[in-house]
Amino acid sequence: MAVYTQVSDDALEAFLDGYDIGRPRSFKGIAEGVENSNYYLETGQGRFILTLFERRADPKDLPYFIALKQHLAARGFPCPAPVPARDGAPLQTLEGRPALVVTFLDGLSPKRPNAAQCRSMGEALARMHAALSDFVQVRENALGPASWPLLWEGRSQTAEELQPGLAALIEDDLAETAKARPQSPHLPRGTIHADLFPDNAFFLDDKFSGAIDFYFACTDALAYDLAVCLNSWAFEDGREYNYSKGAAMIAGYESVRPLEEAERAVLPLLCRGAALRFFMTRLVDWTDTPADALVRPKNPLEYADRLAFHRQAKSAADYGG
Amino acid sequence: MAVYTQVSDDALEAFLDGYDIGRPRSFKGIAEGVENSNYYLETGQGRFILTLFERRADPKDLPYFIALKQHLAARGFPCPAPVPARDGAPLQTLEGRPALVVTFLDGLSPKRPNAAQCRSMGEALARMHAALSDFVQVRENALGPASWPLLWEGRSQTAEELQPGLAALIEDDLAETAKARPQSPHLPRGTIHADLFPDNAFFLDDKFSGAIDFYFACTDALAYDLAVCLNSWAFEDGREYNYSKGAAMIAGYESVRPLEEAERAVLPLLCRGAALRFFMTRLVDWTDTPADALVRPKNPLEYADRLAFHRQAKSAADYGG
Repeated sequence: MAVYTQVSDDALEAFLDGYDIGRPRSFKGIAEGVENSNYYLETGQGRFILTLFERRADPKDLPYFIALKQHLAARGFPCPAPVPARDGAPLQTLEGRPALVVTFLDGLSPKRPNAAQCRSMGEALARMHAALSDFVQVRENALGPASWPLLWEGRSQTAEELQPGLAALIEDDLAETAKARPQSPHLPRGTIHADLFPDNAFFLDDKFSGAIDFYFACTDALAYDLAVCLNSWAFEDGREYNYSKGAAMIAGYESVRPLEEAERAVLPLLCRGAALRFFMTRLVDWTDTPADALVRPKNPLEYADRLAFHRQAKSAADYGG
Repeated sequence: MAVYTQVSDDALEAFLDGYDIGRPRSFKGIAEGVENSNYYLETGQGRFILTLFERRADPKDLPYFIALKQHLAARGFPCPAPVPARDGAPLQTLEGRPALVVTFLDGLSPKRPNAAQCRSMGEALARMHAALSDFVQVRENALGPASWPLLWEGRSQTAEELQPGLAALIEDDLAETAKARPQSPHLPRGTIHADLFPDNAFFLDDKFSGAIDFYFACTDALAYDLAVCLNSWAFEDGREYNYSKGAAMIAGYESVRPLEEAERAVLPLLCRGAALRFFMTRLVDWTDTPADALVRPKNPLEYADRLAFHRQAKSAADYGG
């Protein structure tokens, strides 16, 4: 929740000279996103978001993310549409950082999504998967199962300090998800968002109006995307699974694309894996974030609680599916 | 540069139900201002800024600031116009904090104002003083000369650590400005902004388009407001006085309201006082801000350098006036 890079008057002027979107009428840093600097930019031609990519973004991945958003926008799926500069390229440079202008999306991110929003999100997720079914570019999931043991390396002590007994449970989660990995290639695969938390989705009232922040998008099991959403949308106060919200989300998804039997069978495992992925990255941030950082790390324990739910789940039915 | 208070979905909904401005279409935290939480709010009826007043704002002062902005807006001076709720009151409550909706202002804050912008700012400052000439409410300048020795109390050691020899110079500044205080009541007085830094002013190209952040506004010498602006607009890289920018600002001001001879005579002293005021509050923030704070304190030494310039200035002519 910060703006890391300040943009000088001259740099902004020179940057916008490269675009055909008019003179700036407003330019404000947005306290949104934890990885990049985002600015609200208004010109005579409309409202835009200007993103400066900071250190965590790998520049070689950016063309993939941009192509993905262009693909979605071309198919009418609501997402920030990259705006190309006069030279035809959407990716430019500003203040020494890769910079991208995208169209502004109407909508509000729910802090505490209701069941109607969960349903609308599930439906939109399946529509997004459908819209991406002919997107041919491939990107490996850098935070897939293979990465989890690496992230875990040397952090069991921290986990124990957060909650005594947690390390052994996590070791077990890692073993179980590793054992089950061979099943995963048989699931329907495609391009997934992989980080579609409520703060990356917009709604007008209870109707989904757009998704943002595609910077973890990758090629993986489609049902894993649903598992990420169930983790981030259907738990109350971070810990209690809300059956009706989960059921609404799955029903919304299946109204567009019914889950296959194989997907339903491994949904608990996918949910457990998704919880493990966010537990791991939060654990890393928790230990690695300097005390004086602008962004406070999120507590990993929320995901430890969710893991406890997933460990005892037997099938999609336990999630309301 | 932060958003301190998060607004829940339900709280925002209930809050906006009290207004006649339509349903929200966008709601984003703005990384602007260091004292309060600000949100960009868009509804079917337009763009607004929603401010939640945090701890530093004294609730009993808020009606004064709101009345001041209403007064300016009614006279056509571009500033955020308070939007009253259905009950007629502009000041409401949200998430337990005093909350205010104001109209959105077009324009960009210059990071490094040019001479044309300084001229436009000077002219606007005089227009603002004129628009406020019939504003009858009075508020004492809480950060006027009487406050400086109190802020200085016990901080000479910190000043010495920042720059050896600085404490003695500051003691001298305090003595000189205290000695000169009796002159001040004879200067033309009125309502001043008292904090019109470049980040509190908006421009469309080089033309002033509005002023924001009136939370230090008070009743004081009008020329002191110009002194604050000369300090914050006319120094290059924080230290070197830019004669042409200063001259442009003074000329802009005088194109609307020529300075009186008494004002011209004490301009160096007013500038010295203004520099002292910002040096003192920055020194306090410098020592009092915890290392893990969301907002990094600004270095007080910038103002120590400006004080050095003001100490040797003899008259308005030294500022280009």
